[in-house]
Amino acid sequence: MSRMAKGNAVIVQSGGPTAVINQSLVGLIETLRNCRSIPRIMGALYGVRGIVEERFMDLRKVPASKLERVANTPAAALGSSRDKPDEAYCEKIFHVFEKHDVHYFFCIGGNDSADATLIINEMAKAAGYEHCVFHIPKTIDNDLCVTDHTPGYGSAARFVASAFMGDDRDTASLPGVKINVVMGRNAGWLTAAAALGRIDKKCGPHLIYLPEMPFSANRFLEDVCEVYARLGRCQIAVSEGICDKTGTPVVIGLAERLGHHVERDSHGNVQLSGSGTLGDFLFDFLKVNMRRKYRTLRVRADTFGYLQRSFAGYASPVDQREARMAGRAAARFAMKGEKSGSVVFKRPKGPKYRISYARAELRDVARKTKQMPRKFINKMGNGITDGFVKYATPLLGGLPKLEKFI
Amino acid sequence: MSRMAKGNAVIVQSGGPTAVINQSLVGLIETLRNCRSIPRIMGALYGVRGIVEERFMDLRKVPASKLERVANTPAAALGSSRDKPDEAYCEKIFHVFEKHDVHYFFCIGGNDSADATLIINEMAKAAGYEHCVFHIPKTIDNDLCVTDHTPGYGSAARFVASAFMGDDRDTASLPGVKINVVMGRNAGWLTAAAALGRIDKKCGPHLIYLPEMPFSANRFLEDVCEVYARLGRCQIAVSEGICDKTGTPVVIGLAERLGHHVERDSHGNVQLSGSGTLGDFLFDFLKVNMRRKYRTLRVRADTFGYLQRSFAGYASPVDQREARMAGRAAARFAMKGEKSGSVVFKRPKGPKYRISYARAELRDVARKTKQMPRKFINKMGNGITDGFVKYATPLLGGLPKLEKFI
Repeated sequence: MSRMAKGNAVIVQSGGPTAVINQSLVGLIETLRNCRSIPRIMGALYGVRGIVEERFMDLRKVPASKLERVANTPAAALGSSRDKPDEAYCEKIFHVFEKHDVHYFFCIGGNDSADATLIINEMAKAAGYEHCVFHIPKTIDNDLCVTDHTPGYGSAARFVASAFMGDDRDTASLPGVKINVVMGRNAGWLTAAAALGRIDKKCGPHLIYLPEMPFSANRFLEDVCEVYARLGRCQIAVSEGICDKTGTPVVIGLAERLGHHVERDSHGNVQLSGSGTLGDFLFDFLKVNMRRKYRTLRVRADTFGYLQRSFAGYASPVDQREARMAGRAAARFAMKGEKSGSVVFKRPKGPKYRISYARAELRDVARKTKQMPRKFINKMGNGITDGFVKYATPLLGGLPKLEKFI
Repeated sequence: MSRMAKGNAVIVQSGGPTAVINQSLVGLIETLRNCRSIPRIMGALYGVRGIVEERFMDLRKVPASKLERVANTPAAALGSSRDKPDEAYCEKIFHVFEKHDVHYFFCIGGNDSADATLIINEMAKAAGYEHCVFHIPKTIDNDLCVTDHTPGYGSAARFVASAFMGDDRDTASLPGVKINVVMGRNAGWLTAAAALGRIDKKCGPHLIYLPEMPFSANRFLEDVCEVYARLGRCQIAVSEGICDKTGTPVVIGLAERLGHHVERDSHGNVQLSGSGTLGDFLFDFLKVNMRRKYRTLRVRADTFGYLQRSFAGYASPVDQREARMAGRAAARFAMKGEKSGSVVFKRPKGPKYRISYARAELRDVARKTKQMPRKFINKMGNGITDGFVKYATPLLGGLPKLEKFI
């Protein structure tokens, strides 16, 4: 550990928002405010673009009561962006850092963001610029490496679990087949959370399809028919990121077949959400194929969409606390003289859920995606295991207690 | 008021569920249990069909603690149906009522259900069968006549308002155009609720399209372009039930144009939900037309779907209490010797929100739809008025307190 550099701090929020990304922001601000070596705490507006354009707000001046309300507000309070800085972009950032005497850079973002943070850190080293670079993770996808789970996941998982709980009762009262499409580009963590609120084994979701397992439409049809024949209804959780056996996302295959343009963001990721394409396809597919046998079958499909990451007033209290602590931890690492890192959660083994906050190397977090391990997926590949339930349940901070007659 | 008849009671739940339909069920049960003139309280399973098929459960025996959890569970705990009893169906119902000595019939349902209740009441009178028939309203659509509002609306409105609040912050952090399609077949009450959580005037929804006002795609495009030019983003609330100037639902026109089959339920209502058709159409329409000017414009569309009526754990506490009281009121009317009626909410004028529970004639509630009055819709027909905000806000029982920087 070396001495702490004196200089200003820049904070950015980056990538898709979560319900608790502002908890991390406020955790950072309230800790950095106590530090005399950092005269100015500058919030960059609209992500890294705000640095280049020198659009900053002074975060030392915000009253504590306002900060507390910001912490409880979903989505990036400073604004976000999906810009991915290249060499030239990073040079511009350094000019701005030098100009404003910035020696602390905190980036709250997903794995794309960790990647960007890593580039900036390498550039700083190469340039001999004294610089602290910290990444505070956030993603509803829970697909970051090294950490036990990511801030943002627990709240999205709580939303998805509660949505399935209510929808399961809806589907029980007006029986039929119900398909719900859940966010998750490369990993099934959020879709798997659909199962966390089941009252008993007869409750949905009865089938769960994850990006980790190759999706076959015929196998899907067989699964649904089997459940429907047995229970008279079937509630299904499908990840938007499901892929066929060649690894092609089902939604891309569909879009191409339907002649739709496939959109990509600036990170090259295909846009999967903000459209009902996948849900509507599966809906049509089941109707056409099942109504031969069940003439009056009721089929419905919902695509949960952006509510999963931004719904107000229903965040997981555990997730809120941990996201706050992650922000504080990043500030403390910097104040101890650490030069770079990503904040990770460690969960000690034991009967009681506990989390400790540690520092990982940026390179171990960036440029990697963590999928669900096989042990969390059932043998058939269409559901989850008790191991997953045990892993994920504490992150939601409680679910409503429901009861059923039928 | 006449003496109270001695006989058993049947309770049914009917139509699309809400988050509080079981509060009314439990309100009925806990009040009827105190009445010695009603030896058996029979819950018909899966709506009126359960009567014909004599599928009943004994509701006197359920422990109070279980009842309380049922009350907090969304969707019809007894099961529901969309069957609309005709003459022959009603005759079967009477045979069952005679056989089981049933002289009290309570139906918890929407306006389709009030209609069915009315038919049964008329048949009972014609047959000279001593019979009490009560309707307890429920619908997220808030489109029943006579009553100030309907049980079920406040919870759905709270969900929609909170969804827009979070989504507005999401759209502020990653600016673009966002379309959210909200439930509401014939009336815009639920879509209008999108505006109830605005932090200030710059917050979304910036545009609101209701079934009450004829929808024009060109006018829609102009509106969105105006908001986008002014604020750099635009959040839009669209009712699934919007109609063109001929009164044809936009989604039907679309479905026919796209060669899709239009589904109807047994009441003849076109199925509007459980599909992303309308949202995806508006999404494509804006992208094609706005990208000429804004090349990199971000457009997204979500269709909120069934979550609006069944999401678990986020009901309005005001709605929960009122739905419970509506059930109790129906039971009390019957115990006082009233022969028929629908429970309605009266809101006395005054600075403080209060509700009293009254009895209305079934014929005044059934077969009618209450749309939003013109005074609740802005002059331009693309937003709501302060009058609506004043009317609807107390029904939600509180919204999260958010705060913004940008």
